Amino acid sequence: MAEPRIGIYGLGTMGAALALNMAENGIDIAVANRTASAVPAFLDRAGALGARVTPCDDLAGLIAALPKPRSILAMIPSTAPMDTFLEEVLPLLDEGDTVIDAGNADFHDTRARAAATAEHGVHFVGLGVSGGEDGARHGPSMMFGGPEDSWKALGPVLEAIAAQFEDAPCVARLGPDGAGHFVKTVHNGIEYADMQMIAETCELLRFGAGLAPEAIGDIFARWNEGPLASYLFEITAEILRTGDPATGKPVVDVIVDSAGQKGTGRWTVIEAVRLGQSATMIEAAVAARAWSAERDVRQEGGEVLGTTRGILTLDPDAVADALMAARVLEYAQGFRILGTASDEFGWDLDAARIAEIWRAGCIIRARILDDISAAFHGGATQLHLAPAFADVLARGLPALRRLVTDAIGAGFAVPALASALGWVDTMRQPRGTAALIQAQRDRFGRHGFVRTDAPGTAHGPWWD
Amino acid sequence: MAEPRIGIYGLGTMGAALALNMAENGIDIAVANRTASAVPAFLDRAGALGARVTPCDDLAGLIAALPKPRSILAMIPSTAPMDTFLEEVLPLLDEGDTVIDAGNADFHDTRARAAATAEHGVHFVGLGVSGGEDGARHGPSMMFGGPEDSWKALGPVLEAIAAQFEDAPCVARLGPDGAGHFVKTVHNGIEYADMQMIAETCELLRFGAGLAPEAIGDIFARWNEGPLASYLFEITAEILRTGDPATGKPVVDVIVDSAGQKGTGRWTVIEAVRLGQSATMIEAAVAARAWSAERDVRQEGGEVLGTTRGILTLDPDAVADALMAARVLEYAQGFRILGTASDEFGWDLDAARIAEIWRAGCIIRARILDDISAAFHGGATQLHLAPAFADVLARGLPALRRLVTDAIGAGFAVPALASALGWVDTMRQPRGTAALIQAQRDRFGRHGFVRTDAPGTAHGPWWD
Repeated sequence: MAEPRIGIYGLGTMGAALALNMAENGIDIAVANRTASAVPAFLDRAGALGARVTPCDDLAGLIAALPKPRSILAMIPSTAPMDTFLEEVLPLLDEGDTVIDAGNADFHDTRARAAATAEHGVHFVGLGVSGGEDGARHGPSMMFGGPEDSWKALGPVLEAIAAQFEDAPCVARLGPDGAGHFVKTVHNGIEYADMQMIAETCELLRFGAGLAPEAIGDIFARWNEGPLASYLFEITAEILRTGDPATGKPVVDVIVDSAGQKGTGRWTVIEAVRLGQSATMIEAAVAARAWSAERDVRQEGGEVLGTTRGILTLDPDAVADALMAARVLEYAQGFRILGTASDEFGWDLDAARIAEIWRAGCIIRARILDDISAAFHGGATQLHLAPAFADVLARGLPALRRLVTDAIGAGFAVPALASALGWVDTMRQPRGTAALIQAQRDRFGRHGFVRTDAPGTAHGPWWD
Repeated sequence: MAEPRIGIYGLGTMGAALALNMAENGIDIAVANRTASAVPAFLDRAGALGARVTPCDDLAGLIAALPKPRSILAMIPSTAPMDTFLEEVLPLLDEGDTVIDAGNADFHDTRARAAATAEHGVHFVGLGVSGGEDGARHGPSMMFGGPEDSWKALGPVLEAIAAQFEDAPCVARLGPDGAGHFVKTVHNGIEYADMQMIAETCELLRFGAGLAPEAIGDIFARWNEGPLASYLFEITAEILRTGDPATGKPVVDVIVDSAGQKGTGRWTVIEAVRLGQSATMIEAAVAARAWSAERDVRQEGGEVLGTTRGILTLDPDAVADALMAARVLEYAQGFRILGTASDEFGWDLDAARIAEIWRAGCIIRARILDDISAAFHGGATQLHLAPAFADVLARGLPALRRLVTDAIGAGFAVPALASALGWVDTMRQPRGTAALIQAQRDRFGRHGFVRTDAPGTAHGPWWD
């Protein structure tokens, strides 16, 4: 058996899928798991691929099986278990070894862990992995944050297992320490916004325009053949056209309307606000998930405020134009957060490269990402101002405006779609509404303001 | 000279105002300042009130001047200077003494500081003070978080200097440790939302309906005599009717449209999201302030996307109805955060009491707070469902819907007003849009969902 190039610790859904992906791509690996019984189960599942696998009884065995400098990829929860793992593994490692956290970590934790392992001369990589189990097994998009040396050793392995977009692997070293995990976090934030935009649209088509789920699925399938093509539209079409075997109803009608969220959406919002940014479409999506859990309050809300909504006449082509505009705006907001974080943490993120590695393998893969990457290559700093999207917005913004006003007028909640307009309509007025707010702040708190005709801090005549 | 009841450390704008307020209300005080020269300057300003003031050269002198158990109110920045202050003062104090942080602290810091001083047997109070300099001088609203013992000693002093609402002082012990500072933080978050709602409305009246600032000021003055009566409407009327002495223009027209923010708005948003809540009107207001700073991007946005907006026909009475509904909703969101935090941190916050002490002295004092406090006394848990506001919402929601759709249709940005509808329209649908999101999460990440007809986690047929 060949010497393993990398050790995988953690053979849960995602860890096992990554391990099989590596074996299938000719990479010899060693594997271990906290509960040792998972190892023979994994080997059973691996079948012939097991020839590339060195099974290990425990962490010490895994470390002993690897040549130096060692690379150990941990696919375990990035919370307390990751800290416990680091406590256990660091004494077993030597200078120059690399530990990879491939979970959905809070990038602040990743930065702290990278600093802590560096004191032992051990490299730490925060690897964002997107694509779910299927992506991990057959080709994920991966966002690498960590030392150059680790990238030199691991890059070829990751390129071999990554999703390919026109023969280019969807993985890149994006920066040091937390860069990869942060980009993955914002990826998920954009995913939240896209899903919420889709959910709002389905609601309008179903309860405003009166279409059945299957008919809406057909519309999404058609949209998925045009500029809106994307994995989330693809699975939305599939879901809406899927019946529940037990009841014969559309499957969406047998699912409780209370959405879970793990953390990345919230982290995106929190970090954006902390950095002085606001990604309002992601905020709206995170809010909508929180509200979905409050079923009792919504029940009572219907009783007290009434559930009535009006009829909508919707032209699917116009709705598609609206959604294209909204999608440009949600990516614009997401990339603004990335740019601000890059400046704050000195990551020197390459927006074009990020868009490139999102083109395949990840949940938000979408045809628009090719144009986004081209726009950033062309020097764009704000996507909503990029010439590449001028036509999309010229056609899409009026359509979005019409869709949102019709929806709100008829009593439908469209928080994500409306927040897209709230942002872009703010950002096209050279003179905004904040002068009054500055006057108020000076009036009640003597905070002062800057005059349009003089530098420095001035006060209103109310203080004379 | 009588023995001082309390020591004031920090004679900046707010500290000096609180000190004078105490002296004027017959409370003997000792004062000191990091830079000693501020003390004689304060005495000059105090005039005859100086008879109640024991001036001290430094912190040690201040401590020595106080009877035990001592109470020292620090009005200094609640960031690093507060930590430095605690390092200096703790060795000088005895068990049972109390330190009060009267600044705008992050309540997490307050909790940590309370725990740290408790190890020395010293009480720590986080005191939220609202009302700006004028409030501090003549009667602020104060939100006290700290030990019962400290409240017994300090309550009478604070009640003497607080704003009075129908002879009831606007101060209360709301809970232990960070409770006071957190309530003050959410107070400020509501303040942000109210200011943003006002700014959006002024923009619509001015550039949609074509009214001059002075005419809009007249409208706000009239509104301020009805159910919308509030300090922020009062000063908005005053500001809009104020001319700039230097240019003769309306004062709002000589102010740069870039609004500052210190932290409390952001903290409200961050903490709400962390707690699984979302206060979208406050989020919108925080976002709008952030965007106001991006003048270059807005300038370019106007060039690329065009600045055109349509004409609006607005009936001030209908707009007033809309704003009343929006105000109910912004308070509803704010109190939801308070309730969630109260559960999380075990504060046992009394919503009715909080509304009561906001009725005078603070920036968001408003006639509606009397109804809000009555609604909570009547057992309300969600303000938007309280019978007290049924009429307001029955009239106001259609008006708000009309205002928002007209505004968005004409190209105006109304992020706060629109987010109010996004929330309330979500919260009146017993069956929401999240079933599709759950189906997507199961389809791409095998996250599972709950069926409407069976307990436990199920998966879609795509996994069969």
